[in-house]
This record gives sequence, structure tokens and C-alpha cells, in this order.
Amino acid sequence: MSSLVVVGSVAIDSIKTPFGERERSLGGSATHFSASASFYTDVAVVAVIGDDFTAEDEAVFHERKVNIANLKRVAGGQTFRWVGEYGFDLNTAVTKDTQLNVFADFKPELSQDARNAPFLFLGNIQPTLQREVREQSNAKFVAMDTMNLWIDIARDELIKTINVVDAIIINDAEARQLAQEANLVTAAKKILSFGPKIAIIKRGEYGASFFTKDVFFAIPAYPLESVFDPTGAGDSFAGGFMGSLASADKLDEHALRRAIVYGSVMASYNVEEFSCDRLRRLTPDEIKTRVQEFKDFTHFEI
Amino acid sequence: MSSLVVVGSVAIDSIKTPFGERERSLGGSATHFSASASFYTDVAVVAVIGDDFTAEDEAVFHERKVNIANLKRVAGGQTFRWVGEYGFDLNTAVTKDTQLNVFADFKPELSQDARNAPFLFLGNIQPTLQREVREQSNAKFVAMDTMNLWIDIARDELIKTINVVDAIIINDAEARQLAQEANLVTAAKKILSFGPKIAIIKRGEYGASFFTKDVFFAIPAYPLESVFDPTGAGDSFAGGFMGSLASADKLDEHALRRAIVYGSVMASYNVEEFSCDRLRRLTPDEIKTRVQEFKDFTHFEI
Repeated sequence: MSSLVVVGSVAIDSIKTPFGERERSLGGSATHFSASASFYTDVAVVAVIGDDFTAEDEAVFHERKVNIANLKRVAGGQTFRWVGEYGFDLNTAVTKDTQLNVFADFKPELSQDARNAPFLFLGNIQPTLQREVREQSNAKFVAMDTMNLWIDIARDELIKTINVVDAIIINDAEARQLAQEANLVTAAKKILSFGPKIAIIKRGEYGASFFTKDVFFAIPAYPLESVFDPTGAGDSFAGGFMGSLASADKLDEHALRRAIVYGSVMASYNVEEFSCDRLRRLTPDEIKTRVQEFKDFTHFEI
Repeated sequence: MSSLVVVGSVAIDSIKTPFGERERSLGGSATHFSASASFYTDVAVVAVIGDDFTAEDEAVFHERKVNIANLKRVAGGQTFRWVGEYGFDLNTAVTKDTQLNVFADFKPELSQDARNAPFLFLGNIQPTLQREVREQSNAKFVAMDTMNLWIDIARDELIKTINVVDAIIINDAEARQLAQEANLVTAAKKILSFGPKIAIIKRGEYGASFFTKDVFFAIPAYPLESVFDPTGAGDSFAGGFMGSLASADKLDEHALRRAIVYGSVMASYNVEEFSCDRLRRLTPDEIKTRVQEFKDFTHFEI
């Protein structure tokens, strides 16, 4: 029985960073999310792939014991492809090409097990699709991500979807754009006014901030000397956050704060290598060590 | 007897922000620093002013009980003037005009009291002058600031000065520029290799990071919904940091971490109004409240 479900993309990426490039790199929001969340809980992926998705591509799900009963393979179809590049400002990806392929006609249909999972994450896909998944689910806690594209071309639909989730997890540029507010605190308040109880703003190398109507919490990023490939940082953050919550099966403030730390730890590991390579060989002890480091480098007595 | 000395500018600014403008605004690094530090300890200012510096301008030092025995008035001279403007990105000031005036021939000469103060801050002035002050002082802990101008035109002199201080407190763009490194962690390490034991990187709305050879500490910024005038944020940060250390008269890690929190609190208040207006009516209780808020919004249990 799955305790956490993610709907999102499973993709084949081509990525170029200042430190290297990879022609065929397993990617997609659901991939990074589930690889990350799998360290904490039983996670199921709702997504679509084509015939070109090989057994080698699929291996990460088996290694990480991710449930792929809802990973639909379209005969004769091609997997979603993304070509992206990062400059020395690793905070922003430049999209060189996107081919939706089998994703263009994706109609997610959740199995009974997936419907009954208590935690649901709506990865970055078209907001109407996110809402359809949310409507199929009986989850008690639903979080979502989105991106600038949907704010640009489907803002009204997006706001309808935001209205039916418990938490939104987005990056700071998107938060400002979505709220049409330059100040991040004001932007977060406006986003909360769209309906969710929680807004989490991912700030890349600057860390993450958490807002509810009454509570603010913030954490700096892990001080990485080399960020190799930022692709999937946000999704592995969300995976650590939701996985940790699902594992604790609690939604109190203590659990939420801790979940943000776990999310930050997973993102910090994810960016150390291409694709999910680092998460595939990550150990629970490494997670524990870095969580303790987060505690140490943020701690002070007054 | 002063426990803390600051050398830097006392200036008359003209400031324009998206929220208002002020033609004649009391400013300068030594002004903001001493107003801030005065909440914690006895602080003396080493600086120079002209005839145009009025009793009203001077009032802030008397109100805050700042020692101005080393504030030299040049007969017939004009006070240092800075004209600056901020856009909606309040992290960066655009300098419209700078008139050095009496500052052009400033030769700081410390009184015996100032020489014997155990804590010294070298505000942002020409690095050779900073070094001359450092050589006159018997301080046991010396920190400094600098700016892009000196990195551009006096890098070698600047590095010589950095070599004779205990701590450098600079903003992130300056840290990257000084170290010629894009990654902040790498930049901080390189700056430490220039000599100081401590590098503190101010990151504006993103908070502050603290580096020694062995220790990393970071704190997010106070979540302000409106930043009115960022002028002097860095100097009031440094004032809170050095004032808190001088008051504790300790340099252990606990004292250093706490000093960064006090610095962050002072900067957060300073930017709420023009000039030192907010610090002039700040109360110890308000400081205490915000220090507690910092503790609350960074705290988590693992």
C-alpha cells in the first residue's frame, strides 16, 4: 500500500552545465521526486512513458522500490524529452527544446491503491491535469509545484488548482511572478490568499522559506562548493519534504519544519551529480549526517 | 573608556528609493555602525566632518551616547556627500554622485582611549587608511568592511589590509569579486586564505553566512514586508555584530553566532526607515523581541 503518490513527468533529458554534459539523462519531476521520497516511505508514480524508455531507464524505480503500477507505457510513443542548459548562474535553466511526445495526450488514471494514498504530490504538469488527479484522490494532504510556463499561459486554471491543495512548493521567481509582487513576504501572503494553508518558497543556493498565515520558518541551503547539475533539485526537495511527512504521518509544525530540512538535504545531494546518480547510491547514514550538519550550522543560543 | 572603535565615513546623503526620497539624510558607515553598536557597548567614532555638519546632524551621537572625541571638524570644509538611488531590487544602490570633500585629506589619528579599545571596526574607506588605523590600535579583535571600488582600483592594498584583520564582513557580490570565484563557499575559503580567521558574507534579503576554516553558520534574513531604505544595512549589521562581541567580551563560537543574530536584527530595523531614524527610536525590548523571533523562525528538532 502506497502512502505517497506523485503525478508528474518521467523524461529523457539532455543536459549541459559548465561542468559537463549528458546526452541521455533520466529525468522528469516524478522521477526525481520518487527517488528522493523513497528514502522515507512507499511512493507510487503516476506518469507516462514511450517505447523508447529502456529497462536501464526503469532500473532506478526498481532499485528504489518505487511502485510503478501507474506508470503507463504507450506503444509506439516516445517519452517526454527536455533539452536544457545551465550557465554559471546555476539557479536558472535555459530550455533549448521540449518534446511533449506521449505526455501530450496523457490522461492520468489512478489505481485504487494510488487513490487511497494519504499523501499526494502534484508535480509540475498542466494545472488542469493536476486538478483531475487531485479529484481522483482521497489524500488527506496534497501539495503541488508549478512553473513559469503555466503562470504565463494558464494562470486562471492554475489558481483554481492552487485553491484545492494544502501546500504549494515553488521557487522564488515563480512566487513573485504568480503573486505579481516583488517582495517575497507579500508574495507568499498573496499566494496563501489563493487557498492553500502552506506556501514553501524554494530559493536555490539561498535555501527555503515556509509561510502559513501565522508561522514563518526559513533555512539556509547546504553550503555546497560544487553544484554539478541542478536539474531535479526542486523535485528532490519536494520528495524529501513529502516523504518525511508521509513517514511521520503527522502534519504538526514540528513535522513540517523537519520535513523542510529533509527536503533541503535531498536537494543538496541531488545536485552533486547528473540525473538521479547521487540519490541512487545515497545511504540513510549520509542523510543522517547531513541533517545533523543542518542542525549544527543553523543553531545558536540567545 | 571605549570598548569599541569604528573608523569610517560620516556623511550627508541624498537618497531616493521606490518609496520616497530625502534630500539631506544623515549617513556614512561610521554613523550607522555606531548608532547600532551603541545599543550594546561604549563606542567611539573616528571620522571627519565639515562646517556644514549641524548640531542637528550631530544629535544622533549624543542621543546614542557615542564618543565623538575623535570626530574631527575641518574649518571651512564640507562633509562627505553621497547621492544614491535604489530600484525595486533593493539589494543594490546606484551611486549618482560622490563628493569626498574633507574626506579627501583625512588622516585618522586615534586618541589614547581609542587606541586601547579592545574591539576595532574598519568601516569602508580606502584600504591604506584602514591599515594605518589598524597599526595605531592595540585592539585584540579587528574586523573590516570594503566595497567594489577598492577591489577595482586598490586590490593589492586591500589584500594587505585583509591580512592584518581577524574578520572581514562583506556582501556576497563583493566576496565573489574579491575572490574571483562564482561559488560563495569557494570564494569564502579563498578570502580566508588572505589571512583573516573569519569571513562573514552579507546576503541582503537572503541573510548572512559565517565561515572559518572549520565552521560554517548561516542565518536567513528577517522576513520584512517592506524595506524602506537599505542604506546602512551592512554597517548596522556590523555594528550589532561588533557591539554584541565587545559587550560579551568573548570570541568563542557561541558569542560569534549570537553576534551574527544581533547584527541581523539591527540591519532589519535599520532598513525600515530613512537614515538612522528607526535606530534612534529603537528600544532594547524591540531588539529582544526580534532576537526571539529569529530563534523561533530558524528552530527545528531532528
